[in-house]
Amino acid sequence: MDTILNLGLNDETVLALVKATHNERFAWDCYRRFIQMYGDVVMGVQKRPNEDHEPFEVVIHTLKHDRHHADIEDTKMTVADLKELVNRFKALIKEHTGSEFPQNPWKQLWGAVGAVFGSWMNDRAMVYRRKYGIPSEWGTAVNVQAMVYGNTGDKSGSGVAFTRDPATGEKVFYGEFLINAQGEDVVAGVRTPEPVAQLKNHLPEAFAELETVRKTLESHFKDVQDFEFTIQDGKLFMLQTRNGKRTGLAAVRFAIEMEKEKLIDWKTAIRRVPADQLDQVLAPIFDRQAVKAAKCIARGLPAGPGAASGKMYLNADRAAAAAAKGEKVLLVRNETSPEDLRGMIAAEGILTAKGGVSSHAALVARQMGKVCVCGASALQIDYNAKTMTVDGSSYNEGDFLSISGTVGEVYPGEIKTAAAEIVQVLVEKSLDGKESATYQMFKKLMDWCSKVTRLQVRTNADTPEQTANAVAFGATGIGLCRTEHMFFEGNRIDAMREMILADNVEDRKKALALILPYQKQDFIGIFKELKGLPATIRFLDPPLHEFLPHEDAAQQDLAKKMGVPVAKIKQRVKELHEFNPMLGFRGCRLGIVYSEISEMQSRAIFEAAAEVQKAGIKVKPEVMIPLVGFKRELDLQVEVVHRVAKEVMAEKKVKLDYMVGTMIEVPRGALTADEIAQTAQFFSFGTNDLTQTCLGMSRDDSGSFLPPYTELEIVKRNPFATIDQVGVGQLMKMAVEKGRSTRPDIKLGICGEHGGDPDSVKFCHRIGLTYVSCSPFRVPVARLAAAQAALEQEAAKAAKPSKKK
Amino acid sequence: MDTILNLGLNDETVLALVKATHNERFAWDCYRRFIQMYGDVVMGVQKRPNEDHEPFEVVIHTLKHDRHHADIEDTKMTVADLKELVNRFKALIKEHTGSEFPQNPWKQLWGAVGAVFGSWMNDRAMVYRRKYGIPSEWGTAVNVQAMVYGNTGDKSGSGVAFTRDPATGEKVFYGEFLINAQGEDVVAGVRTPEPVAQLKNHLPEAFAELETVRKTLESHFKDVQDFEFTIQDGKLFMLQTRNGKRTGLAAVRFAIEMEKEKLIDWKTAIRRVPADQLDQVLAPIFDRQAVKAAKCIARGLPAGPGAASGKMYLNADRAAAAAAKGEKVLLVRNETSPEDLRGMIAAEGILTAKGGVSSHAALVARQMGKVCVCGASALQIDYNAKTMTVDGSSYNEGDFLSISGTVGEVYPGEIKTAAAEIVQVLVEKSLDGKESATYQMFKKLMDWCSKVTRLQVRTNADTPEQTANAVAFGATGIGLCRTEHMFFEGNRIDAMREMILADNVEDRKKALALILPYQKQDFIGIFKELKGLPATIRFLDPPLHEFLPHEDAAQQDLAKKMGVPVAKIKQRVKELHEFNPMLGFRGCRLGIVYSEISEMQSRAIFEAAAEVQKAGIKVKPEVMIPLVGFKRELDLQVEVVHRVAKEVMAEKKVKLDYMVGTMIEVPRGALTADEIAQTAQFFSFGTNDLTQTCLGMSRDDSGSFLPPYTELEIVKRNPFATIDQVGVGQLMKMAVEKGRSTRPDIKLGICGEHGGDPDSVKFCHRIGLTYVSCSPFRVPVARLAAAQAALEQEAAKAAKPSKKK
Repeated sequence: MDTILNLGLNDETVLALVKATHNERFAWDCYRRFIQMYGDVVMGVQKRPNEDHEPFEVVIHTLKHDRHHADIEDTKMTVADLKELVNRFKALIKEHTGSEFPQNPWKQLWGAVGAVFGSWMNDRAMVYRRKYGIPSEWGTAVNVQAMVYGNTGDKSGSGVAFTRDPATGEKVFYGEFLINAQGEDVVAGVRTPEPVAQLKNHLPEAFAELETVRKTLESHFKDVQDFEFTIQDGKLFMLQTRNGKRTGLAAVRFAIEMEKEKLIDWKTAIRRVPADQLDQVLAPIFDRQAVKAAKCIARGLPAGPGAASGKMYLNADRAAAAAAKGEKVLLVRNETSPEDLRGMIAAEGILTAKGGVSSHAALVARQMGKVCVCGASALQIDYNAKTMTVDGSSYNEGDFLSISGTVGEVYPGEIKTAAAEIVQVLVEKSLDGKESATYQMFKKLMDWCSKVTRLQVRTNADTPEQTANAVAFGATGIGLCRTEHMFFEGNRIDAMREMILADNVEDRKKALALILPYQKQDFIGIFKELKGLPATIRFLDPPLHEFLPHEDAAQQDLAKKMGVPVAKIKQRVKELHEFNPMLGFRGCRLGIVYSEISEMQSRAIFEAAAEVQKAGIKVKPEVMIPLVGFKRELDLQVEVVHRVAKEVMAEKKVKLDYMVGTMIEVPRGALTADEIAQTAQFFSFGTNDLTQTCLGMSRDDSGSFLPPYTELEIVKRNPFATIDQVGVGQLMKMAVEKGRSTRPDIKLGICGEHGGDPDSVKFCHRIGLTYVSCSPFRVPVARLAAAQAALEQEAAKAAKPSKKK
Repeated sequence: MDTILNLGLNDETVLALVKATHNERFAWDCYRRFIQMYGDVVMGVQKRPNEDHEPFEVVIHTLKHDRHHADIEDTKMTVADLKELVNRFKALIKEHTGSEFPQNPWKQLWGAVGAVFGSWMNDRAMVYRRKYGIPSEWGTAVNVQAMVYGNTGDKSGSGVAFTRDPATGEKVFYGEFLINAQGEDVVAGVRTPEPVAQLKNHLPEAFAELETVRKTLESHFKDVQDFEFTIQDGKLFMLQTRNGKRTGLAAVRFAIEMEKEKLIDWKTAIRRVPADQLDQVLAPIFDRQAVKAAKCIARGLPAGPGAASGKMYLNADRAAAAAAKGEKVLLVRNETSPEDLRGMIAAEGILTAKGGVSSHAALVARQMGKVCVCGASALQIDYNAKTMTVDGSSYNEGDFLSISGTVGEVYPGEIKTAAAEIVQVLVEKSLDGKESATYQMFKKLMDWCSKVTRLQVRTNADTPEQTANAVAFGATGIGLCRTEHMFFEGNRIDAMREMILADNVEDRKKALALILPYQKQDFIGIFKELKGLPATIRFLDPPLHEFLPHEDAAQQDLAKKMGVPVAKIKQRVKELHEFNPMLGFRGCRLGIVYSEISEMQSRAIFEAAAEVQKAGIKVKPEVMIPLVGFKRELDLQVEVVHRVAKEVMAEKKVKLDYMVGTMIEVPRGALTADEIAQTAQFFSFGTNDLTQTCLGMSRDDSGSFLPPYTELEIVKRNPFATIDQVGVGQLMKMAVEKGRSTRPDIKLGICGEHGGDPDSVKFCHRIGLTYVSCSPFRVPVARLAAAQAALEQEAAKAAKPSKKK
């Protein structure tokens, strides 16, 4: 928002200021500064369309050249220069606005007050408010206060500083200052400021006082402060202070070290780390120097945090082939689909030209902890030519690219990266935890969280590897094991396609029998990694057409491979085409129409469970039926599950401890949760689809209207990132109440992408869910948010007067 | 369900029956009948896969040829024949089942009882229950009763009859009988029965008694009866009676004439006509003789009642062109889309190979009162070859076809049709009402309805013509005027496409300015036809890609016409492509992102209203914003409407009486109805989309799983035809309550296709809506259902003891 300094000066008062301060240069410097700022902010003197530079800067530049034939520093301008500047500025204002610069201080004041109020609605302020979720209707106040001056001479200066380093978290005095300058000069970059520690050499007394203030501020506010100061003729003035913005890493270090310093207690330390920033400490990082030198060629949405470099490939198969040859690859697509999975697995990072932060690419990337930039709309991808064009420059498949999923930037060429320390300790196990200071801090924070958390954190994991990672990050089980990914790998996709092309139930069963051993092995691997923790396994969910190839060449290949006419494949693809596949033949609808699929999946789960249990490891499968809207859908599927479980237990002579439940992901499921809970032993909210259906808004298609919707404040937050508590949340609360009304001990969880979003996690805590589930690398974020939710509730209870005496 | 006659006979009791009746032939005839029925129903002797005829029939046939060298009538078989038949039947049973035909009567009885119970779950019973909405869990009872015999000789016989003609409604004795036969023979068609009036000639006394019974039954049951009788040795026995099934026409005539006869009062008459059959009396009809001679080549869903003949065309443009030349055409497509609209308007009837009773084809057909058969899956359509193949036979474009949308049948060639009498009176005005008996009855029924109805019936109409028809049928206004159809006709589609292809708001406004006068003219026409009745007008709703051509040739044409490169059109089509268009960039999202569209539409509405009002006709526009899920969406659109209304009223110096409201068609709209009602002056439930989103079920894609869902009784009724009261209905009730909580006088309606479904209309009455809205030809159906709902509520109140003294 706007501010106006040096207000009150005019042709008369400037002379008085000269007389009062005996500092003619200072007075005229203030006057010219005031006219420039007032002319810009209040009177609206702006660059014209055909101009390259700010008009006031042009006047300064011209004057310097007229009188000194060079670009001298502002501080070197003489009194005569400054007086001339005042005249030229006045003329500029008159020329641009047709009005005179006002001499009346009251008129100046009202003009400035109006401009500051008006700046509440300027672009910068609106963008800032959107980013930090501040509603426009709050409005603003205007402060009017006396000035202190950093521009009276060499005993004066201005600076901005942090009590600690907000990037690394280190406990050092961090900031910068300028001698003989007003605060604006430090920020504006007219002169290059010096690090704040250098102030000691210029004004040692003021610096000593500032050091004291630094400590006072932290001991008073119990948090790192970001403050502005001015030194006027050797005397220190503090202009403002506020809690300092910080990186995730710094936030953790501040919290841990301040607790050690007894500035805050451990519960405050938990609340002090912004949960959504915690995953920054887990993300791979670019080499600092290398990325500074690189040029950003396109921007997209930061969809999977971290940094990745590799050769770009525009096709999943070619990407996978290149990776198999040992190349580091980036998969670059307009958008991704499950057919691209192999390529996504193989890639260091994923870059898409279309789609939002919860597009398929983003979803899978986060699930796998992959770096991802999506919706980089400047990219023009030509699949045929195998090129990507940005802003006139063309890149060929095989060229190196680098992307930062933390900031959403794309760079040409290779930039060196490294895994985060914590990941090196927990996942790569390449670093001893004791050697890593960051890991030690992270571990302490997570241990504190465990002491207060009620809401459990599970993970969405489809493979033993993902499971192991999530458990290492502290997940207490799997909340969503998507089985569809198990149909894609290697030969299985062939059997799956055979199943889909089958004309009758016998042929379908034959094809399914080929898939069974693979699925069983997958489950065995997952159960072993879980070591007794529960696993919620979802039956096949996506529409079948996703498993068939849609391009002619791939269809020809498949026909040859399977020995069927290609027309048959085309026919089936056509039959399976849907207008709105999200609302089509998917979820439990598949298992109901083709119950042999559910039978096979049940058998794979229970045979795997029996085998692992016999090896002495406890197994807790929780079979989850997707997309249920009618109790009878669940009844029919549960019947299959129980029947197969009974069969397997008899065959293998083992007793298995399992549950059957459902996802609540269409509104009708929530509305009839009391009926459904008569059969379901647990609910898991599929908030991705529940959001899509409740809002009537397709996640993949919302890119065309969600941005204007955000600007117009129709939605405050992206509903696919943070639960829409008023709408979707209302359905969830309803389902919780209704579910408990017929099954008081029902287990309740959430397995949508929202499970890794801090605000959504807190909402889940408040409505009384048992657990949230999120992708492995989001587990720490969710654990932190869950702990914060518990603390917030504790605080809220303490604030309310107890009803009992 | 199954029945077993003549039970108790065996080798011993048959002799006793001979002795008791002195009628050897009769006794052996009963015995052979019993063995055949028991063998078939209880012991399961069925045709083998390689056999063409029923095994018992084969035995009878063989025996006749062995002994008489001819196919004599059953009644001509001698005692010796019958005895031999008994032996051969026993052998057949032994051969087929490996078991002996049981001689013990108790064993026979228990076998029969078991079979009847079992038949509750046979295919026929299940299909019947589905059709008439009878839940399986009701189960059945088994009646065991003494026999009377119609096969003792020429003084005996059996028959089935109606007290009046159930096809035409005429008060004549209607039915058929057979002398010397059991009831099964009449139904089975072994011999050709005689009309019941002929019984007078055979058995005049029995006939006279039957005539008396006919009158007694009607005066007792106060309704037309469908009964079975048997005459044993001249004595009449009544076997069963029940209310007779009837056609729509008969139902109306019964009700009207019985009221005249004082058998029932007028309120009972209203309740007596099944509302969903009323539109049968409005549908065009085939010439009776012609259709009898025709061969049905394919069956589909009866989606738009009536009969139509015309030359088949596989493409909308060619169909329209042919119709313009004066041909009668049928539009035949795999499925239809808004691009086909011109062809649908031009066609006599619409036939599709895919899609259900609420597919686009069906929806538009009913809206326009067009005959429609959809989902005739036997049709193989080859657009390139311009042929349709059915079961090996090929039909070329231009060949005549006929379809019955009442029964869902397709015939080759032309069959003569005529408009229903009522339509001739009210719409075609080609028949004086006084000349038409059917119209007189219809009018009386509708007049009665008006006396009790609380719920108003409006219509979904997009043109002056549809409006006029609906008003003639008694609509009290327009509940849904879809403006998108107004963008398709003639040149307007060009301007619309220009708008969509525009790169900036100025070009969009220019293109919209071209559409404005057309829309305005449409509204003027509609307002004039309404003569002061209210019109709810919905802003543009469908996704923009529906307005662009998707085929290469059409894109080339458009490019040439508009003078833009075809690549630009292809690019825009690609940009507008959506994964789930139902949940995409449509509804108010269009009007919010491109507010100039809403401005143009507002202006067209208000300028039209001003003009018509100045001409002395009262106008009540109700502007409806579609797909609202957030109050602020509505706020933003309402702002545009009010602004434009104010402008137009100032320009035209006129005061307009208008309202602004919203559709409730996504769950979030219902869940936040209290907020939305702060802005909305009315709600209209868009139950099509509300069903799709609440159930997570795409109407157009549900064809793959709704049929098995119905069989498995997951859904009792097609939720796109009849409101899912438990799920969607719950959201509606919630929205009604919440809406009234912040705006007690809010006007509430429904404009989904459900507005024409009697059960849904009754539900709307119960939850307190102000009106329902349906397609013009469904208005009488909805009026009848609304009256019945009022009477049902009256009856329910009367049944409850009053709380006041």
